[in-house]
Amino acid sequence: MNATTSIVAKAAPYLAAGRRMRRTPYTSRVEALGCRVFSVYNHMLLPEVFRGDDADYHHLKTHVQIWDVGCERQVELAGPDAAKLVQLMTCRDLSRMSEGQCRYVPLVDEAGGMINDPIALKLAADRFWLSIADSDVLLWAKGLAVGLNLDVRCSEPAVWPMAIQGPKAGELAELVFGNETRSIGFFRFKRIGWRGHELLVARSGWSKQGGFEVYVDDWDLGGALWDECMDKGRPLDVGPGAPHNTERIEGGLLSYGNDFTNANNPFELGLDKYIDLDKPVDFIGRTALEAIRANGIGRRMMGLFIDARELPACDAAWPVFRGVEAAGELSSCAVSPLFGQGIGYAMLARGCWDAGTAVRVRAPDGRSLSATVAQLPFCKP
Amino acid sequence: MNATTSIVAKAAPYLAAGRRMRRTPYTSRVEALGCRVFSVYNHMLLPEVFRGDDADYHHLKTHVQIWDVGCERQVELAGPDAAKLVQLMTCRDLSRMSEGQCRYVPLVDEAGGMINDPIALKLAADRFWLSIADSDVLLWAKGLAVGLNLDVRCSEPAVWPMAIQGPKAGELAELVFGNETRSIGFFRFKRIGWRGHELLVARSGWSKQGGFEVYVDDWDLGGALWDECMDKGRPLDVGPGAPHNTERIEGGLLSYGNDFTNANNPFELGLDKYIDLDKPVDFIGRTALEAIRANGIGRRMMGLFIDARELPACDAAWPVFRGVEAAGELSSCAVSPLFGQGIGYAMLARGCWDAGTAVRVRAPDGRSLSATVAQLPFCKP
Repeated sequence: MNATTSIVAKAAPYLAAGRRMRRTPYTSRVEALGCRVFSVYNHMLLPEVFRGDDADYHHLKTHVQIWDVGCERQVELAGPDAAKLVQLMTCRDLSRMSEGQCRYVPLVDEAGGMINDPIALKLAADRFWLSIADSDVLLWAKGLAVGLNLDVRCSEPAVWPMAIQGPKAGELAELVFGNETRSIGFFRFKRIGWRGHELLVARSGWSKQGGFEVYVDDWDLGGALWDECMDKGRPLDVGPGAPHNTERIEGGLLSYGNDFTNANNPFELGLDKYIDLDKPVDFIGRTALEAIRANGIGRRMMGLFIDARELPACDAAWPVFRGVEAAGELSSCAVSPLFGQGIGYAMLARGCWDAGTAVRVRAPDGRSLSATVAQLPFCKP
Repeated sequence: MNATTSIVAKAAPYLAAGRRMRRTPYTSRVEALGCRVFSVYNHMLLPEVFRGDDADYHHLKTHVQIWDVGCERQVELAGPDAAKLVQLMTCRDLSRMSEGQCRYVPLVDEAGGMINDPIALKLAADRFWLSIADSDVLLWAKGLAVGLNLDVRCSEPAVWPMAIQGPKAGELAELVFGNETRSIGFFRFKRIGWRGHELLVARSGWSKQGGFEVYVDDWDLGGALWDECMDKGRPLDVGPGAPHNTERIEGGLLSYGNDFTNANNPFELGLDKYIDLDKPVDFIGRTALEAIRANGIGRRMMGLFIDARELPACDAAWPVFRGVEAAGELSSCAVSPLFGQGIGYAMLARGCWDAGTAVRVRAPDGRSLSATVAQLPFCKP
């Protein structure tokens, strides 16, 4: 495969084997399909590359892919205080959230620092799932529940999401689950029967190509579902895939651990519309976020258009300069087929963050790349 | 290198690059030394193999190694309630812990489930570090602190431990830090000057070969210290190394995520001597552990001697049988040069856990291996 070949040429490291980096119900499938590149996410294996970086990108934007995102762990909050706890954890007002709904919920700590940015699913008035990014949200939830003596059970249920993503995702979902999937609205979910088992199917996913996430709660069923999707999707040119770095940057999706950490607050990330300080919402970090709003932020996540036809992998922050002055750090980047140039995210200091500002990025290969600050999400060319 | 060659032959996966899997101050050094095999631990890179599995083992037990264990993150608890919080988090009585001391502290949740098993360092009466295994203890500590409204700051300081391990570790430490290192007792630490900087040096480490862990709190100094250790250690046949699976199983060291998870309580792990229910210690999970002690446990971690000259990597639980009955699961194993056979850890059901019990292990390569239950730690042959 192209990806493997090019990576071998760069002497990419191997991933050691160990039970600490857990397999998913789909790992044996992606291995059989030749996947050789993984990362580790929530202590689980996340397959990353199949046909090669470019081919995976174009396939995702043209056809339909099945993703092993079993590493998207669910943190379940259940019990009389579940709704109270989930609201305490996020700055977004959930008072009008209804059952069957998904919501993007920035989680903040007492200082307003980001803990994670999961999708919340309201399963019932007293039962929620948080479909998390790469940090142990369960420990945060349990700590709060114990400390506040809340009547809520916090657990990580045996659920391994499988995503169906791409422009033909709707067609494939219908072939597998029937036409009930048509009636699932964006960021809504339904329970749909499959082989005598009820599966939670949501219209969501970590791409901008549309699709579904299936919350599979039975290990063996997961493998069977993968096989059926690959089989029934053949006429649609289905293939295995994975969240794609280029596609997600083009679409403005931020990645916890890559683009932001606990050291960042949601204002810095431009998540203002999810920060409901003007509503009477009781959440941890409210006082801190009020102070941050009053004082203003000193840095902000912005887009960059980068003058580059080739960019190495971004495995550390790259310094960004405005003239000779330090302007901030680039956290993710890719060469975008859509925009015909490099694009990336950078946390930029006040005075450097206005769209149109000319900056330079120092890449680890020594190049100093000219770049232009842009609004997020990037505007279609 | 042997390790890489043999791993390539088995089509081991590559590790994707990303800032989410952070580099340490030593990563550039281990890369330059040819390390090609990493795992991910606390969202950081952990180099695993240098000369090959066997050669690394014998080198560690004969000479002295420098380990990049920057992934051993510190969770700092500081402030008036720091001592109260650290005691709330562990079932081990810390009332007589003194400054300058290290303690192995099982952390348990409200149900008595293991959260992590770090080494606690008492820096001052109101300041502790937890040198953690692979889970986000910071989130647990913060959740408790916020929920209980404690006056304590919980943070992850910029500290990247580097370990000096092996029978010649004392000699090397003296060459680098001077003879003050001689006076550091086991599981004690001192602050020692090095290039005008005070470094915390502890006599500890995740091997049974003796040695030190240096808690480096300056990125650039870390690289310089690595270089000086490699340079001054040349007459001692120093080399890079890593925590070694075979050596740590021989020594009875358990690994969070591999051998146990939040689903296990400390009694099941044989950690009874660290469970101070008979002392008036106030910790979370006390009620749960009292109930578990009263009712008895249904399974227990035991050693296994396995009749095998070759064992694949253990990346999932292997079923263990007594006759035709399920007896439990093996979590880690290795072929031990010390014992001349396979050894491993297994969580075994009551009735199957007595030392001397004959069991069978089903390896993923299809073999059914005969094995014998043994006490932990394994007795020297």
